[in-house]
This record gives sequence, C-alpha cells and structure tokens, in this order.
Amino acid sequence: MPKILKTESIFESKLFKINKSFIQFNSQVLEYEIICGAGNGAVMILPFINDEIILIKEYAASVDNYMITFPKGKIDKNESILDAANRELQEEVGLKAENLKLIKEVHLAPGYINHTTHIVIAKDLHKSKLKGDEPDDLEVVRIKYKDIVKYLEKEEVVDSRVFSALFIYERYEKT
Amino acid sequence: MPKILKTESIFESKLFKINKSFIQFNSQVLEYEIICGAGNGAVMILPFINDEIILIKEYAASVDNYMITFPKGKIDKNESILDAANRELQEEVGLKAENLKLIKEVHLAPGYINHTTHIVIAKDLHKSKLKGDEPDDLEVVRIKYKDIVKYLEKEEVVDSRVFSALFIYERYEKT
Repeated sequence: MPKILKTESIFESKLFKINKSFIQFNSQVLEYEIICGAGNGAVMILPFINDEIILIKEYAASVDNYMITFPKGKIDKNESILDAANRELQEEVGLKAENLKLIKEVHLAPGYINHTTHIVIAKDLHKSKLKGDEPDDLEVVRIKYKDIVKYLEKEEVVDSRVFSALFIYERYEKT
Repeated sequence: MPKILKTESIFESKLFKINKSFIQFNSQVLEYEIICGAGNGAVMILPFINDEIILIKEYAASVDNYMITFPKGKIDKNESILDAANRELQEEVGLKAENLKLIKEVHLAPGYINHTTHIVIAKDLHKSKLKGDEPDDLEVVRIKYKDIVKYLEKEEVVDSRVFSALFIYERYEKT
C-alpha cells in the first residue's frame, strides 16, 4: 500500500478544508490534494409512505439551477446518524419517522474527497416541522416509487447520490 | 429562482478552485462556497466483455485505503467524451473499445461541487495499452456481472459513482 509521508493544510474556510499529502508509491512520491468534508459526514434519507417516496427540489449553487435530491444534511457534533436523519426530515419535509434504518455508507469520490454519506430508510412518517437552515422553503416532491425513473429522466439536474441510494436500496434492502 | 449577486475566487490550486457566491433568496442573502471541478468534467467507463464487467482497485488518498471504482478520469482540453473514455480505458486497464456509448451525465453533489461525470458503456474490447499518469499499475478486477453486488458488498470502500452508474445502466440502458 502507498504510504503517506506528510500532510499539510493548504486551505481552510467555513465549509472546506484542503490538505496536501506527499505519498510514496512504488515508483515515486506524488503530491495529492484532498478535500476534507465536514467532520461527521452526512445523511441522506429515503422517506417512504406506502407505495410513494419523497424527494426534494433544492437550489444548487454550483449549477445555478434547481436539483432533485433526497432530504439530506450534515450530522451535527454529538448527534447520532439516525437522530440527524430524523432532524433533517423534519426540517426539510416537515415529517418525522418512527422507523429509521441505516442501510449503507457511501464514499462520494474517495480519490479526492473525504466525504461519507449515510443512506437511511425512513418509514412510519407523521407531521412534525422543525426550522432548518434553508433560506427558503424547499419544494417537496411525492411520487409513486414505480414512477421514479421516469420522473428523474425529465429532470435536468439530479444529485448523483440519488442514483447511488436507489441502487443500494433496490439491491441490498428492498424485499 | 435565487439570484447570484456576486462571485469571488477564494482559493485556487493545481486541482481545485473554490468560489464564494453571494446569493439572493426570497428571505435573505447567503454566502455559498462552491468547489469548481476541472474544466471539462470526467468520464466513468463500464467495460463489458460478454457476461463480465471490469472494475479497478485504486489507492484513494482521502481514505488512505484502496477503493473499488470503474475506470475513470478527467476529460482533457479539446478531447471528446468518448475519446477520453477510450484513452482512460487503455491507460487504466490496457483495453480499447470499438463500441462506446454515452448513457448519462451525473452531477456529483451539486449543492457544493460543480463536477460532472459522464457515464460511458464500453464494448468490443481488445488489448491496447497507453501509459497513464497513475504512479503504480492499477489492479484490474474482472467479474461476472451477476455477481457484482456480492462483490461490492465485501469491499470496504466503493466510489459512490459505481452505484450511480450501475443504477443508471440497469434502469436506462440494460435491455
């Protein structure tokens, strides 16, 4: 395995930290730049109501457009994964789950970002609203699960983690 | 739609550029930090040989471990998506495709990264090696497609785009 010889911080802001590491491979030493995500990772929640699933439509600054994604957000310090999932669900779609299950963690793009998203299934939902940090209310999209591919197909920008989460749900969890 | 009032660069290195934008929402103006990926985006290639598919095992600095991913890489300036796919395939697994098809573009995490990956199916493969920028030879993994979930399940670190690409392949392309 390659060996990290030295790591130094080259940038740090409110949101991001970038490190540069010097890594010894068999043939040579290379410099790698790595984005370090916020400390505890993120949650992404797949909320189910009978045969329907809930997505959100949120402004995404990087593309200056709306994107389709699942409710999601950062895990706060000292917060469990499932508590974070239930908090985000209440903040973003105004629903609380009685039944939450972590199905898998995914690494966004481990070659250059240290960012883990925990995929959580949420069921047994009832109304409960918490105030989040979103500047405007999010658009909540509720569709039949069987129509999800057709729905995603017509949307211009879809968070890639929606596809990852659906693959994992269908192949690892769905019965 | 929210309106970008001003954008300024707050960091730039060999690999990353970070911009800060001031965005007018209905209720308030907020600062957003956005990572801007390399100019032309990336390709990720799903190489098929009969009933088998090829993955690679590559050192991922952000987790200091090996990760499973598909052959992939940046699109060079003035290079087409499919040319980039065929070049990466030759560099990373020593195969060239006679049959390449772009099936979809995915946005990694559009809330804070401006990074597009083009998912390409590669078929009709034959041996052809190009020298890439990888420091050591990559481990090439060739498995039956029907065993891919079982295979991914036992791996510690899997690039999330593997799951996205598989979902897209299965739901949009597979016949």
